[in-house]
Amino acid sequence: MTPIRVTLWNEFVHERTNPAVARVYPEGIHGLLASVLRSHPELQIRTATLREPEHGLNEEVLAQTDVLTWWGHAAHDEVSDAVVARVHQRVLDGMGLIVLHSGHNSKVFRGLMGTSCHLCWREAGERERVWVVNPGHAIARGIGHFIGLENSEMYGEPFGIPTPDEQVFISWFEGGEVFRGGNCWTRGSGRIFYFSPGHEAYPIYHHPLIQRVLYNAVLWAQPQGTKSDVPRHVPVEEAREKITPRGPQMHDASGALTGGA
Amino acid sequence: MTPIRVTLWNEFVHERTNPAVARVYPEGIHGLLASVLRSHPELQIRTATLREPEHGLNEEVLAQTDVLTWWGHAAHDEVSDAVVARVHQRVLDGMGLIVLHSGHNSKVFRGLMGTSCHLCWREAGERERVWVVNPGHAIARGIGHFIGLENSEMYGEPFGIPTPDEQVFISWFEGGEVFRGGNCWTRGSGRIFYFSPGHEAYPIYHHPLIQRVLYNAVLWAQPQGTKSDVPRHVPVEEAREKITPRGPQMHDASGALTGGA
Amino acid sequence: MTPIRVTLWNEFVHERTNPAVARVYPEGIHGLLASVLRSHPELQIRTATLREPEHGLNEEVLAQTDVLTWWGHAAHDEVSDAVVARVHQRVLDGMGLIVLHSGHNSKVFRGLMGTSCHLCWREAGERERVWVVNPGHAIARGIGHFIGLENSEMYGEPFGIPTPDEQVFISWFEGGEVFRGGNCWTRGSGRIFYFSPGHEAYPIYHHPLIQRVLYNAVLWAQPQGTKSDVPRHVPVEEAREKITPRGPQMHDASGALTGGA
Amino acid sequence: MTPIRVTLWNEFVHERTNPAVARVYPEGIHGLLASVLRSHPELQIRTATLREPEHGLNEEVLAQTDVLTWWGHAAHDEVSDAVVARVHQRVLDGMGLIVLHSGHNSKVFRGLMGTSCHLCWREAGERERVWVVNPGHAIARGIGHFIGLENSEMYGEPFGIPTPDEQVFISWFEGGEVFRGGNCWTRGSGRIFYFSPGHEAYPIYHHPLIQRVLYNAVLWAQPQGTKSDVPRHVPVEEAREKITPRGPQMHDASGALTGGA
Repeated sequence: MTPIRVTLWNEFVHERTNPAVARVYPEGIHGLLASVLRSHPELQIRTATLREPEHGLNEEVLAQTDVLTWWGHAAHDEVSDAVVARVHQRVLDGMGLIVLHSGHNSKVFRGLMGTSCHLCWREAGERERVWVVNPGHAIARGIGHFIGLENSEMYGEPFGIPTPDEQVFISWFEGGEVFRGGNCWTRGSGRIFYFSPGHEAYPIYHHPLIQRVLYNAVLWAQPQGTKSDVPRHVPVEEAREKITPRGPQMHDASGALTGGA
Repeated sequence: MTPIRVTLWNEFVHERTNPAVARVYPEGIHGLLASVLRSHPELQIRTATLREPEHGLNEEVLAQTDVLTWWGHAAHDEVSDAVVARVHQRVLDGMGLIVLHSGHNSKVFRGLMGTSCHLCWREAGERERVWVVNPGHAIARGIGHFIGLENSEMYGEPFGIPTPDEQVFISWFEGGEVFRGGNCWTRGSGRIFYFSPGHEAYPIYHHPLIQRVLYNAVLWAQPQGTKSDVPRHVPVEEAREKITPRGPQMHDASGALTGGA
Repeated sequence: MTPIRVTLWNEFVHERTNPAVARVYPEGIHGLLASVLRSHPELQIRTATLREPEHGLNEEVLAQTDVLTWWGHAAHDEVSDAVVARVHQRVLDGMGLIVLHSGHNSKVFRGLMGTSCHLCWREAGERERVWVVNPGHAIARGIGHFIGLENSEMYGEPFGIPTPDEQVFISWFEGGEVFRGGNCWTRGSGRIFYFSPGHEAYPIYHHPLIQRVLYNAVLWAQPQGTKSDVPRHVPVEEAREKITPRGPQMHDASGALTGGA
Repeated sequence: MTPIRVTLWNEFVHERTNPAVARVYPEGIHGLLASVLRSHPELQIRTATLREPEHGLNEEVLAQTDVLTWWGHAAHDEVSDAVVARVHQRVLDGMGLIVLHSGHNSKVFRGLMGTSCHLCWREAGERERVWVVNPGHAIARGIGHFIGLENSEMYGEPFGIPTPDEQVFISWFEGGEVFRGGNCWTRGSGRIFYFSPGHEAYPIYHHPLIQRVLYNAVLWAQPQGTKSDVPRHVPVEEAREKITPRGPQMHDASGALTGGA
């Protein structure tokens, strides 16, 4: 079986600078996710982080990536526009993209959505319930009715996104808010999943059901067909159907336009 | 009645440099569209073009624009990124945007869509039929089954756009192609309509039914509600519902994190 | 100005049989809604109820209705299939439909959706917050961030509906649930809005912001274009483009097929 | 590997009554499709037809079907409402459904769509081009730019369907029409694909690319997650979050309502 090639991208700033975060994710968020997803033999996992050359996302790495996950928060602006454009193009060409938590504010996600991607937030370690609103969706397999999180950062509506193609999860927060936190889109030939749970200081990625969602999402996001076409001029000679000559010609012998119908 | 304030933006390059185009649109494409739309008393029309300072789209003009139309082809790259960002933000804040023909390749449209916006094309003065696929849509009012164009540029699929929220028109071309040429999206609080007919050298904007579509689209695209929210931090004190204190505290006295649930 | 003709349909069972409901809605839910909407001079209001002949929805009434609202709960099965089919057809022909609260289980709504329209529920007089997730939508005009209801019936996910074309509201409930409670669809030429708040025993329709939503929804749901086409056979003679005779004929003189391409 | 269980349903009327059709499909349309799909070892194929008891679609058959295909034309009304309801429910529970050609007018399809499913048509053996508008979609794998059909029945817009969740194909017809002929929806937990090519008298299902589309569609339509929930009352005792007692009670000791907030 051909493996699904997954690249886990992490900004990897908080874990190096904040001891409390380092205690939750001693190998970085990417390190934990890698160890979790490596338990699935059909996945081939690599990681990449901001401080590597080209943020670890050079042409070759991306060409060999079927699904990319993205976690960032403190350093969105440090991601180079060239890498952002490269990732963007690979998504349009068919690579799956899974955007995690504060990645909603990344250049990559905002560029693909075309909207503000703004939201409301509150850090109060409050309860969250991640409800399955679409139990037939592949990303909801094995989740049951909801995922309960004892301590979470609140993300609240209005969330500045295009209407999702498919809505998989909606979150409830103890303090009174709701949030569309599990959303699917297709852009070009690529599938995109945004999943909101996952603050750096709460051990949310240690939760088995959150890990199950990420695994499900990787399977869902893998390339489905062929990549989108490049723009293409179709010469008249290639038009299969004969185009009837008619009326005043549009071009004279010099190639200059000479008038309309 | 409060008028709908419409700004007609035109690159205005072909009309100045190509005599054949100038014969079709002696006052520029924007000039013709202005004279057409001024016949509707509820519309208040102004025009703006590329060569004006800030392309005629300074903050004040945009703040006073309910619906902006966009025609460009030869000079997409000359539109400044600052103006593109300003137009983009105004759309998210509620301004309607009508993108015409080769405007599919403009920075403004591509930024809002997040996709390639590529398509196939052929200039052969061939027949086009613009079919109404959604007769109940406001933009199709008064159009009947289709609009027949004797000479048109072919635009063909695949068109690199997100799935339209609403599909109003699909075009048939004599040479054998089809094209999703009348498409609606909402982004933020703004409505966007892309309409493909309208090549600079064919007198398509002189066609009464094409003019009717543009008028309908202006009515449809006007702002509907209030503008999207800016991002907002919600302090714990403002959470209406009491958040139950629990478990290990997330922060110690210094503000450093001290552990999760 | 042409008025918008609104018909408010109510099952009108609870108000007649349950004194507690009668105290909240002494003139019936339709009676209260009528008095509220009559304050808007551009609306022309009538009411109709289950026990009237043809449930008050004969051909003439429906032909003169631009927007129909639907409240039912105890007697969905008593609505005749003939009236359901008539309402369904009128929606496809362009009439707006606003389905309220327990109307999610009506034959009319389920037939238009094609899905179960099931949901979870709990009557505990708990707090509800109806969040605006789409502040630019016409139905959210004037609502602010959310509508707070002190006592409401819980409606919870998963809600068995097709993905809404537009999501306007999502509700939060004190007991831990979320619900897509303000949803838009277009079917044929008709606009449909489902709005979940509105239990018969809680005075929810007395709330000014709930009334504002209903008014906004009536404006939004009014017919936009022309009605959808009836099926139509297009004779060969009417095909504008000549169809090239080719290859082996498909039919011999007797009308029997004689071969393919 | 668990096989995908496919049931090919065919009305099987034309093939028995019209010799010309019988020459094109001597074993019935279902017979040809069965022989084509049996070449894929991961598929487990059975067929069912109108004249069998319960149309060959009893509870057991449907319970063992992952994907159902539907071809009907002359006898839509002979399909019993009980079987229609059973198929409908199985789709909502996760079974994939592929509706072929004139099946657009079947009770099953119309019930799931909630719309007229009307279209325009012309039988003139004219050329059709089935364009891929979404090359990244799984159903378009291996198809290239378009499928050319030398002789086809024209199906034309407006097609009375809800906006497809995904648009895969749009057809061009020699006589001047276009048609959304490859459309995806999700309803409940089930995926639905409508594919228009396939008239009984043209040998369209003998075309290798048409066969490829059907195979792709079967893979795409297989169940993705778990089935949708049945409606569920959630007792107050099961609400995880404490519901704050407040204000006037809604029920007195007898269970009768006693007032609102």
